[in-house]
Amino acid sequence: MALVVHKYGGSSVADANKIQRVARRIVEVSKLGTGVVAVVSAMGDSTDELIELAHSVSNSPNPREMDLLLSTGELVSCTLLTMALANLGQEAVSLTGSQAGIHTDTSHGRALIHRVDTSRMQKELEKGRVVVVAGFQGITEDNDITTLGRGGSDTTAVALAAALGADRCEIYTDVDGIYTSDPRIVPEARKLTEIDYDEMLELANYGAKMHPRSIELGGVYNVPIYVSSSFNDTPGTLIHCIPGNANEGEMENRIKATGIACTNNVAKITVRGVPDRPGVAAALFEPLAQSGISVDTIVQNTSEDRTTDISFTVSGTDLPAALSKVEELSTEMGTCELSSEANLAAVSVVGSGMQHTPGYASRMFRVLADGNVNIDMITTSEIRISCIIREEQAQEAVKLLHRGFQLDEPNP
Amino acid sequence: MALVVHKYGGSSVADANKIQRVARRIVEVSKLGTGVVAVVSAMGDSTDELIELAHSVSNSPNPREMDLLLSTGELVSCTLLTMALANLGQEAVSLTGSQAGIHTDTSHGRALIHRVDTSRMQKELEKGRVVVVAGFQGITEDNDITTLGRGGSDTTAVALAAALGADRCEIYTDVDGIYTSDPRIVPEARKLTEIDYDEMLELANYGAKMHPRSIELGGVYNVPIYVSSSFNDTPGTLIHCIPGNANEGEMENRIKATGIACTNNVAKITVRGVPDRPGVAAALFEPLAQSGISVDTIVQNTSEDRTTDISFTVSGTDLPAALSKVEELSTEMGTCELSSEANLAAVSVVGSGMQHTPGYASRMFRVLADGNVNIDMITTSEIRISCIIREEQAQEAVKLLHRGFQLDEPNP
Repeated sequence: MALVVHKYGGSSVADANKIQRVARRIVEVSKLGTGVVAVVSAMGDSTDELIELAHSVSNSPNPREMDLLLSTGELVSCTLLTMALANLGQEAVSLTGSQAGIHTDTSHGRALIHRVDTSRMQKELEKGRVVVVAGFQGITEDNDITTLGRGGSDTTAVALAAALGADRCEIYTDVDGIYTSDPRIVPEARKLTEIDYDEMLELANYGAKMHPRSIELGGVYNVPIYVSSSFNDTPGTLIHCIPGNANEGEMENRIKATGIACTNNVAKITVRGVPDRPGVAAALFEPLAQSGISVDTIVQNTSEDRTTDISFTVSGTDLPAALSKVEELSTEMGTCELSSEANLAAVSVVGSGMQHTPGYASRMFRVLADGNVNIDMITTSEIRISCIIREEQAQEAVKLLHRGFQLDEPNP
Repeated sequence: MALVVHKYGGSSVADANKIQRVARRIVEVSKLGTGVVAVVSAMGDSTDELIELAHSVSNSPNPREMDLLLSTGELVSCTLLTMALANLGQEAVSLTGSQAGIHTDTSHGRALIHRVDTSRMQKELEKGRVVVVAGFQGITEDNDITTLGRGGSDTTAVALAAALGADRCEIYTDVDGIYTSDPRIVPEARKLTEIDYDEMLELANYGAKMHPRSIELGGVYNVPIYVSSSFNDTPGTLIHCIPGNANEGEMENRIKATGIACTNNVAKITVRGVPDRPGVAAALFEPLAQSGISVDTIVQNTSEDRTTDISFTVSGTDLPAALSKVEELSTEMGTCELSSEANLAAVSVVGSGMQHTPGYASRMFRVLADGNVNIDMITTSEIRISCIIREEQAQEAVKLLHRGFQLDEPNP
C-alpha cells in the first residue's frame, strides 16, 4: 500500500473551518487507497498564547514544564482533526508523540529524536485508519514529554516518513512552494518545481520558510519532501535527490543560481585582540552553545602579531545574552576588546554548481556595489555565498540579486 | 514525613493571579516540612471551551479523542502551577495522569481507576519536590488517555491520598465547606465542622457541590477529606469516619438531621402495565445503563392483575435519549403505556440515625404539606428521605425543611 505523511502547519489548522478543509483533503487521498499519517502543529497562535501564560506565572519557566505545557497545543489540533475525519466517515485515530513512538533525548525545548518505534502507527494503519500525530513532541526514556524546538512539526513529519518508509512527506503550509526568493520582496520571484536537499538546506538556513533540520533529515534518509499550500491545489515544490546534481557533466545545465535567501534580525559581535593560540575558538563558542545561543556565521581574520579578531553573528534576540556571556569570557582572557552591531541582515545566493563556476562571488559583490550596498562580512559554502549587510538595505539587495542572477527569467 | 494531598478546582486556578495564590498556599505548607501532592483541575471554563471546539468540527466526537482533547486542560494548569511554585523558590514537578501512575479501565469519558503506581511520585517527593498532578485523567493498559468524568479531579485527589497513605486530602474550592443546605437558597444554613462519609455521600448525591464518587472512595480507604475555600482561611468541613456514628448508644446525640439537599433538572418516566414477571426490571434498565444514561430514583408500585407500574427519574438532559430507549423496549414488551414529566426536583433530608428515630418521614411530609408542596414520588435510604416535587417549588421546600428540622439552630 502506498503511504504518505502529511504535515499541516498552525495556519492550516487555525480554526474549525480550516481543520475541516484539511480533513476533506486527507479523505480524498485515503479514498484512493493510500495510507495517510497526518502530523499537525498547534492551532494558529496557540503556542504563543501558552508561552504568554507561562510568563504570566514565572519569570523563567522551567524547560521541562514548558515542554509539557507547549505539547498540549498539538494535542488539541490533533484530536480535533481526528474528530473532523470521523465526522466525514473516515476512521482515524490521534496519537501523542509518545503514542507515536517518538523517543528523544532529554534536551527540553530542543530535543533530538533518537528513534521512532512505529508499531502503534503500523497497527492503526493496518486497520485502515488515518493516523493523526501531534507534531513537535516526543518522550524521554524517563517518560517525560519533550518538544523538538523550532520547526519541530516538520521534523516530526520527515522522521515519521523515514521510519515508516513512506513514499513521500508532504508539507502543507501557507506558502505554495519554494521560490527563487521571497515573493513579498521580489514580485517576479519564480516557484521552483524541484530543488535538491543541499540547496534547500542553504535556502532554509538563510530565510526560506522551512526549518533546516527537517531538510537535513530528509536528505539523510532520502525522503522526498513535497511543499505546497493547504489552501489551494496549485503544484508545489519537490525537495528530493536530483540525480546528476553532483555530476560535473551535468553542470552546464545548472550554472544559474537557484534562489536568493535573506535573514533579518542579525547581530554581529566582534572580539578583537584574541590570543592566537589553539583552543581559543572553543573557549569562546562552547559557553555560548551551552547557553542555547545559536551562532551563525563565524569569521576569523588573519592575525597580526600574536592576536586575532573573531567576528560572529547571532540572532538579534540573542544579542544581549550573547554579549554578557562573551564579556565574561573576554575578562577571563585578558586583553580582548569587544564590539557589537545589531540591525544587520544576511543575504545569500544559493545554487549547486556554484563552486565549480567562476565568477559567482564577484558577480554578487558587483551587484551589491552597484546598488550601493556595503558588505560587512562574507562567508561561503559549497553552494552558497552570504553577505552580511545593513538590515535596512536587505530588501533592496534581494531584489538586485534576484535580477542580477537572472532568476526572474524562466528556466532555460 | 507528614504528607497531604491538595486539590484545587477550576475556579481556584482560573488565572495567573489565582495560580500564584495557590502556589503561595502550597509553599506555606511545604515550608513546615509537610510533603505536598497538589491535584489541579483545568483553568476556569477551559474544559467547556474544549468541548465547544470539539463540537465545532464534529457532530458526535469520538470518546477516545474527546478524552485526549480534554486531558490537555489539566496539563496546562498543572504545568503553570509548577512554574509558579518554582518562581517562589519551591522545587516542584508536574506529572500527567500517566506519569502519576493512574491506571484506568477503557471506559472513555467515565473511566474507573484500577490502580495507582506511586513510584514516580514517591521518587519526586523524596527529592523534596512538590508534586503537581493533572487531575481528571489516567491511562489505559494500551497507553491511551482516559478521563474520569464528572468530579474527576476530586476522585484523582482522594485516590492519590489513599495510594500514598497521605494524612489527609484537602479539597480547595469556591465554597468554604459543607453546609446544612445551599446558603444561596437558605441564608440561615450553617457550616458543618465535620460530617460522616455516608451522610456526605447522600448530601453529595442530592445536590451538595462535591462528587459522590470521591466521597465513596474516601470512605472505602478511610481518607479524611477536608473541604475548604481556596480564597480565604476560614475553617472548612472535615469529612471522616465519625466514631460511634453507627453505635446505637450515641444515637441520642444525633437525632437531628444533618442537612437538606436538593437536585434540580430531574425528569420522571413512568411505564404502566409492565408484565409482572422476573427479569422485567433488568430488561428495562440494562439498555439505559449501556447507553450511559444514569437512572436515579426507581419506584415500583405494587401490582394489580399481572402487570405493574415502574417509575424512575433521570437527569432532564437525558430525558429525550431515555424516552426513545424506553419506547423501543416497551414496543417489544407489548402492552406498556409510557408517560414522562420534566421540570421536577428532588429534595432530601439527610442524617445518620434517621432510620432509628421515628417520625422523620412524617415530619418531612407534614412540613411539605403545610407549605402546599405536592409530593410526586418518595424514596428512602438508611440515612435519607427524598421527595420528588415540582422544580418551581424546590427552593421554597428546601427553606421549609431547613426550618422544619431546626437546622438553623446551633448544634445542641
